[in-house]
Amino acid sequence: MTTVGILGGGQLARMLALSGAPLGLRFLVLDSTPDACAAQFAPLLQADYRDQAGLAEFASRVDVATFDFENVPAESAQWLADRVPVFPSPRALAVAQDRLAEKSLFRELGIPVPEFAAIDSRAGLDAALAKIGTPCILKTRRLGYDGKGQFRLKSPADADAAWDALGAQAGTVGLILEGFVAFQRELSVVAVRGRDGELRAWPLTENWHESGILSASLAPARVDPALQAQALGAARKIAEALDYVGVFALELFLKDGVLLANEMAPRVHNSGHWTIEGAETSQFQNHLRAVLGLPLGDTRAVGHSCMLNWIGTLPAAAPVLAEACGHWHDYGKSPREGRKVGHATFRADSRGELAAALDRAGRMLDRSAQVAPVLGRLAESSG
Amino acid sequence: MTTVGILGGGQLARMLALSGAPLGLRFLVLDSTPDACAAQFAPLLQADYRDQAGLAEFASRVDVATFDFENVPAESAQWLADRVPVFPSPRALAVAQDRLAEKSLFRELGIPVPEFAAIDSRAGLDAALAKIGTPCILKTRRLGYDGKGQFRLKSPADADAAWDALGAQAGTVGLILEGFVAFQRELSVVAVRGRDGELRAWPLTENWHESGILSASLAPARVDPALQAQALGAARKIAEALDYVGVFALELFLKDGVLLANEMAPRVHNSGHWTIEGAETSQFQNHLRAVLGLPLGDTRAVGHSCMLNWIGTLPAAAPVLAEACGHWHDYGKSPREGRKVGHATFRADSRGELAAALDRAGRMLDRSAQVAPVLGRLAESSG
Repeated sequence: MTTVGILGGGQLARMLALSGAPLGLRFLVLDSTPDACAAQFAPLLQADYRDQAGLAEFASRVDVATFDFENVPAESAQWLADRVPVFPSPRALAVAQDRLAEKSLFRELGIPVPEFAAIDSRAGLDAALAKIGTPCILKTRRLGYDGKGQFRLKSPADADAAWDALGAQAGTVGLILEGFVAFQRELSVVAVRGRDGELRAWPLTENWHESGILSASLAPARVDPALQAQALGAARKIAEALDYVGVFALELFLKDGVLLANEMAPRVHNSGHWTIEGAETSQFQNHLRAVLGLPLGDTRAVGHSCMLNWIGTLPAAAPVLAEACGHWHDYGKSPREGRKVGHATFRADSRGELAAALDRAGRMLDRSAQVAPVLGRLAESSG
Repeated sequence: MTTVGILGGGQLARMLALSGAPLGLRFLVLDSTPDACAAQFAPLLQADYRDQAGLAEFASRVDVATFDFENVPAESAQWLADRVPVFPSPRALAVAQDRLAEKSLFRELGIPVPEFAAIDSRAGLDAALAKIGTPCILKTRRLGYDGKGQFRLKSPADADAAWDALGAQAGTVGLILEGFVAFQRELSVVAVRGRDGELRAWPLTENWHESGILSASLAPARVDPALQAQALGAARKIAEALDYVGVFALELFLKDGVLLANEMAPRVHNSGHWTIEGAETSQFQNHLRAVLGLPLGDTRAVGHSCMLNWIGTLPAAAPVLAEACGHWHDYGKSPREGRKVGHATFRADSRGELAAALDRAGRMLDRSAQVAPVLGRLAESSG
């Protein structure tokens, strides 16, 4: 009997536990809140990520540990890794937690990235602004999540406001200035690497964001095979450089035919939720297979899928359930502004069938604006 | 927030809970044993099905109740139904629990059945034997499960031995003598009926048994469309006669082009496990949708599936996980002779791909005998 420990008890931990049950696994979730939604389907150990007594109990009760939440303090991850196997490794986690380390690694590996510069001071901000130009985005190096800790500068005149908002963090979590990319499309590659180094990737996914939060995903994205190969090559380089084990996502911007690496998430990823119904093996089960050293499952897509994220509150389920290709995912959370509370996946055998279902459901749910960009893409005859 | 109560905490309850989580449901499992395998993923209330205090607590904590185990005492089901909605109804459960009531209903509805007779006494057994002939099977009317409580008579000379084995139960649970059917194929139709009366069925499944326990299932079974329609018609008549709500399975024998109804299971069924990967909506999620009055999901097959049951002990998982189309289901139970401890489903886009994977896995697992009849069927060019 193998018990998998998961640091963080949100929807990712919940879906990991649900997909790992058929493998005969047991789970233990560590979360600081008593109502963590994963705890509805897995035992919970309530403790802070920095509470060493809690971590010690956690380590004593699990055979292997992984993450639902990538911003677990690096020292906690390392403390655990000294006691039980932890995948991905604390080093991989540390790089992915730090926008500067991450982008520097991408650049070292020859992967195209948007322009960026580390910012240590107000003078440094001015210098970087002169070099990178506007529009650009000032971000904290660490602990950014879904658009928090970011300030967008439309012109150099916004420097004061940006510094007022984030300058105090220059000496703590650190800051980075990133050039704004006027991309044509946002894509992600979700991949998994086994303990033996085998790498598999699901087909590229196209994503749309609203207010910095993922709104919709479409997979397989219809892209040039050369771009698919480029994305997979970048994912492979990064995974090998970090000796990564488990699922990760690499977010990409497509601009003028070039893929720029934006950031990586060292965990199962929202843009891979469609794999539950839309791929032979889901990202959740493959993450567990990787972490446990089991054979990786097939990552091919089964048909065409669109995922719609539900942010803040859930719409009515019935219009989704009534669609032959509609699948509902309620995370069992209470509603809260900006919170990911669920998603729906539409999986169909053809793009036409998918578009028709999305169009109907979008109107029934009063979510036509959310499905519109996906419908636009599906309506394109090619490319 | 809706809590579904499940009477019985075995693998069916476990898979119901796992498939109901995305609907935002909570679960409570009632089982008399502390290590019921569903309790690994759902809260457990440990109590006997006849314990009224336990049932009262159960009723107070759930919004609706259903079954993992069909032999819950009818009076317990009725006691619960007087307090909370229970689906399927105690009446449907009572009919399905009683082989005589069940077969009598089938006959009343004009559904072909094997020959049968109620047996009240040794003299009655002799009279029925004279009418039905041998081979035949003497069975208890109630509480039969996976070949227990059955005695097969090869000739009238076996009457003494049969009576010695089961005669004492003639005055308690009752006995039935059934003519043995030298069938060509065993099939099942798994169907779901909503609270509004809508009925949907998955494609017919072909089944193979070993020592009275399901060994393998293949779906969709390749049968004449007229037989598919006949099976669905029988399922519909039965469901409507019982005002049935939820998933049920009707087991059928195919003999000389005629489908004979053998028995029904008033619950999700082992021959429907393939629907987890092999159908757009699984039997587990559709059972919950029906019980809750939600729209029913699409029951079409996605490709071709074969389920292999693991009885007693699990074989090695790796040969299944290593197949692109292989999916593993470990129920988290300890090994025990005759116990259903898990299953594997192979889901492929073509029958050829399915056969190749089954053949490889069968050899790797030393289960060639288990897959042989399925491979034989897949090798047939038609029919």
